Amino acid sequence: MKKTAIYHRSVPSMSYAYDKETVHIRLKSERDDLVNVSLIYGDPYDFTADEWQYHVVDMNLTGQTELFDYWTVAVKPPFKRLRYGFYLNDKNGEQNVYTERGFYSQAPQDIGCYFCFPFIHENDTFSAPSWVKDTVWYQIFPERYANGDALLNPEGTLKWGSEKPTPTNFFGGDFQGVIDHLDHIEELGITGIYFTPIFKAYSNHKYDTIDYMEIDPQFGDKETFKELVKACHEKGIKVMLDAVFNHSGFYFTPFQDVLEKQEASSYKNWFHMREFPVQMEPIPNYDTFGFVPSMPKLDTANPEVKSYLLEVAKYWIEEFDIDGWRLDVANEVDHAFWRSFRQVVKETKADAYILGEIWHDSMRWLQGDQFDAVMNYPFTNGAIDYFAKRTIEAKSFADNITEVLHMYPENVNEVSFNLLDSHDTPRILTLAGDDKDKVKLLYLFQLSFTGTPCLYYGDEIGMAGGGDPGCRACMEWDENDQDAALFRFVQQLIHFRSEIDAFGNSGSFRFIEVDNFKNIVIYEKKTEETKLIFVLNNSNKAQSIVVESLASKKVNEIFTNE
Amino acid sequence: MKKTAIYHRSVPSMSYAYDKETVHIRLKSERDDLVNVSLIYGDPYDFTADEWQYHVVDMNLTGQTELFDYWTVAVKPPFKRLRYGFYLNDKNGEQNVYTERGFYSQAPQDIGCYFCFPFIHENDTFSAPSWVKDTVWYQIFPERYANGDALLNPEGTLKWGSEKPTPTNFFGGDFQGVIDHLDHIEELGITGIYFTPIFKAYSNHKYDTIDYMEIDPQFGDKETFKELVKACHEKGIKVMLDAVFNHSGFYFTPFQDVLEKQEASSYKNWFHMREFPVQMEPIPNYDTFGFVPSMPKLDTANPEVKSYLLEVAKYWIEEFDIDGWRLDVANEVDHAFWRSFRQVVKETKADAYILGEIWHDSMRWLQGDQFDAVMNYPFTNGAIDYFAKRTIEAKSFADNITEVLHMYPENVNEVSFNLLDSHDTPRILTLAGDDKDKVKLLYLFQLSFTGTPCLYYGDEIGMAGGGDPGCRACMEWDENDQDAALFRFVQQLIHFRSEIDAFGNSGSFRFIEVDNFKNIVIYEKKTEETKLIFVLNNSNKAQSIVVESLASKKVNEIFTNE
Repeated sequence: MKKTAIYHRSVPSMSYAYDKETVHIRLKSERDDLVNVSLIYGDPYDFTADEWQYHVVDMNLTGQTELFDYWTVAVKPPFKRLRYGFYLNDKNGEQNVYTERGFYSQAPQDIGCYFCFPFIHENDTFSAPSWVKDTVWYQIFPERYANGDALLNPEGTLKWGSEKPTPTNFFGGDFQGVIDHLDHIEELGITGIYFTPIFKAYSNHKYDTIDYMEIDPQFGDKETFKELVKACHEKGIKVMLDAVFNHSGFYFTPFQDVLEKQEASSYKNWFHMREFPVQMEPIPNYDTFGFVPSMPKLDTANPEVKSYLLEVAKYWIEEFDIDGWRLDVANEVDHAFWRSFRQVVKETKADAYILGEIWHDSMRWLQGDQFDAVMNYPFTNGAIDYFAKRTIEAKSFADNITEVLHMYPENVNEVSFNLLDSHDTPRILTLAGDDKDKVKLLYLFQLSFTGTPCLYYGDEIGMAGGGDPGCRACMEWDENDQDAALFRFVQQLIHFRSEIDAFGNSGSFRFIEVDNFKNIVIYEKKTEETKLIFVLNNSNKAQSIVVESLASKKVNEIFTNE
Repeated sequence: MKKTAIYHRSVPSMSYAYDKETVHIRLKSERDDLVNVSLIYGDPYDFTADEWQYHVVDMNLTGQTELFDYWTVAVKPPFKRLRYGFYLNDKNGEQNVYTERGFYSQAPQDIGCYFCFPFIHENDTFSAPSWVKDTVWYQIFPERYANGDALLNPEGTLKWGSEKPTPTNFFGGDFQGVIDHLDHIEELGITGIYFTPIFKAYSNHKYDTIDYMEIDPQFGDKETFKELVKACHEKGIKVMLDAVFNHSGFYFTPFQDVLEKQEASSYKNWFHMREFPVQMEPIPNYDTFGFVPSMPKLDTANPEVKSYLLEVAKYWIEEFDIDGWRLDVANEVDHAFWRSFRQVVKETKADAYILGEIWHDSMRWLQGDQFDAVMNYPFTNGAIDYFAKRTIEAKSFADNITEVLHMYPENVNEVSFNLLDSHDTPRILTLAGDDKDKVKLLYLFQLSFTGTPCLYYGDEIGMAGGGDPGCRACMEWDENDQDAALFRFVQQLIHFRSEIDAFGNSGSFRFIEVDNFKNIVIYEKKTEETKLIFVLNNSNKAQSIVVESLASKKVNEIFTNE
């Protein structure tokens, strides 16, 4: 038995409450080493007849990568307490019991040896708003969606779509433009909009906040924003804003005060100033986002800053009824701040969604006390590398996706924010070398996968564009230049997701076949009633595939309904 | 290379801030597989010359068990941000780079591949009160320490030490008794006392609280307690109380109210009642500690209960100046409660110590937001099994201790509450089959090990006793029946711990030699100035040992000072 590859620890990724009565337990082992794993479990205080009373249940092989097997099981402890260990049987007939104190040949009677899930507390259980897992998001970069009110155009505004986007040009996109085009969004089947920043700022992207309590005048006023949110809600569309709390913009009043008064400024502790006088070159002598002098890092541990930003968080929910916050550079802000943030947000609106921008392993933020979800870049990377760029093979892709599914709890996966591209990356069509068939596969995978998918504005009608600023072009509103077929394809998938339980988060995901040579992946999404089989041909040619599990079964092709 | 045994994840046990400028990184690999591991690290935004600028530093092999090697390194990122990966070189000359996205043959340029420690936030950094790591604790079970005021004796109090302890008898131990004997405690070198519960309760152990705001009258009144704390503080001794917040006692007024008024009780939501009428048999129809009907579990998620218990936590610090709380059955209470508890406690007294009773892996509580320490039972088990019971061999013991040291961050280990026995276990002398030489080895190991050691009252003068109630006998105050030599031995060790930096937490611990056949373990405790070598002979006979690292060195024997 490959003991050194066997891993379990009673930490949130491997041992967690799925809901108020269910605990999920996972174990990792070397690929193809174990033929059977079962969970030994019981209540720690149940010593009927002076012996610890335990049960044994088989675990399921829920994933396999090049290196590892992943085993999972769900149990419902009647008194909410759990001690547990594992029976491991390998391919050579060796059996061991794996516990918190290591390996034994038999299940130890000493309860102290076992792993512990002490008690299911509902208030500690990770729990995202219930609407999130049924939501399909649409990301809008407001300056580039639609110019609905020319009176608001900033100085030097260019004619819509007349030029390529640059880091500094303006096209006058605004709230009225979004309101005018909500039909497009609704028609596509979207149920949530994520707006990149809308607060008063200097740049076209608005990530350099000047005033967190004001709408940028180029987008409209507070009344228009209220109207926008109301219009969205009337169409069953949620609204999420972007909170840039890691750093402010250069023209944020407190930072300007520090620049002016230096050490005498009453705002000097709002930032991480290392010394005075303030220097911006060659490297700023205060903490910044990256090394960008114009984006000074806020000291979110300072009670004044904290209370100011929490007020911001509350204000936009309370006054404008927004449904969620997306948190920019979320992992560089302290955990203590996010815990308070969650409290304030949930007290203000119990079912508000909190989404962190984190590009790396985010387990620390997903334990129930901070975020509801993170932007699922590991998903993005796998999907883009396989379907768009074809830089990895089918098996690597499947490994990647299997790891994504096993690095976080299942209730976390169900609300994971699955994006393919954004204002920070090239558009998928461009990533796919302008091949729309690849884009269709990407959408098919994204929209049938576990989590909550997000589409980047314009992708659905075939817009192309490279990395920032290329991906921030003006939305194409000329129907002659929109790809209506692609739009209908995406619309159809979104429709499937809402109409067929197994298509969305109710269906459990499993790879059935992954073939490097043919370059196909086959997976299933299954509920008790329905099994959907997805066959994705990522090669350039038509291929015939025999899906063994469907032999002699009656099959309905959902695209053609045949 | 044994890739499936290589493990790192950016979670608090393997990637954490040790202090406001230092990050510790750890990696686990199969024993003797890798000959060299180095950390690749840099600031994520440092792209001088369009290439990510990284450094490489060797990691140290800080521990070895039967199965694993543990590698550790400390780095100080100048801008507090860190991306990192690992160069791995195995014994066959194979080299790989290990990252968050798996193995590569060369260090990838894409920063997205690396592990991430986003930013060192001082307020998120685990930080226990600085006095704790220099403290030697003494646990007192107040009913059995000394009867200093006969007027307080409960009905039926027995003559001191006249009978064996039973679950229900009383000997009249009280605060005055402790005050009268503080000299004994001071003489031993103790700098902290942990009292098991002192609040009004029914039993002799007082874990069945009736009133959290009152001293049990058999111990004295609030004035006497104030005097006791003051007397301790005057001798440089800290005072820690036991908080039994998981469950109340049967006679706790709110529970009595529920029993009386049933569903109409305004306290019905103070507990986890599953249905009415309340039933105690055969299994209570409400949650309890274990299945004990007289210990109803408190609903610490109920804001009323929470606010009541937080008031308790605050009151005893504010009014009586206690220095710490030990939390009974801490892991069965919700994390949200403990987070608020920490806030209240630290706001009331910034350097108060919070110690959880958890018998299992406690990483979830030791991330800086909940506890300062847990009772280190994994340490207890290893030390008792090896030195007292001799049920494990030297190498198993060393494995156990090495794992203890690598399962938590180093700043956690430094304040870990290392006990050998308690009111819940047999006494060490009894565990050691009445062999005082074994007890001396136990003390030598405990008092020279990383963490904050705790002695159980009476052990130091050679008291014996089996599991509860045997271990709860009256303290022996007749000097003729006290083992003065053992007392002096323990006193000497405590003196070393306070006088020689390397003896206590300033010294870093490392096994040098572990020999099953001879049954010896040799370890070092090292500072920059001093290296202490401990040679523990756990066999029954005198043995000659050559300590190679000391060959031709000048050595001072600290016991004899020769």
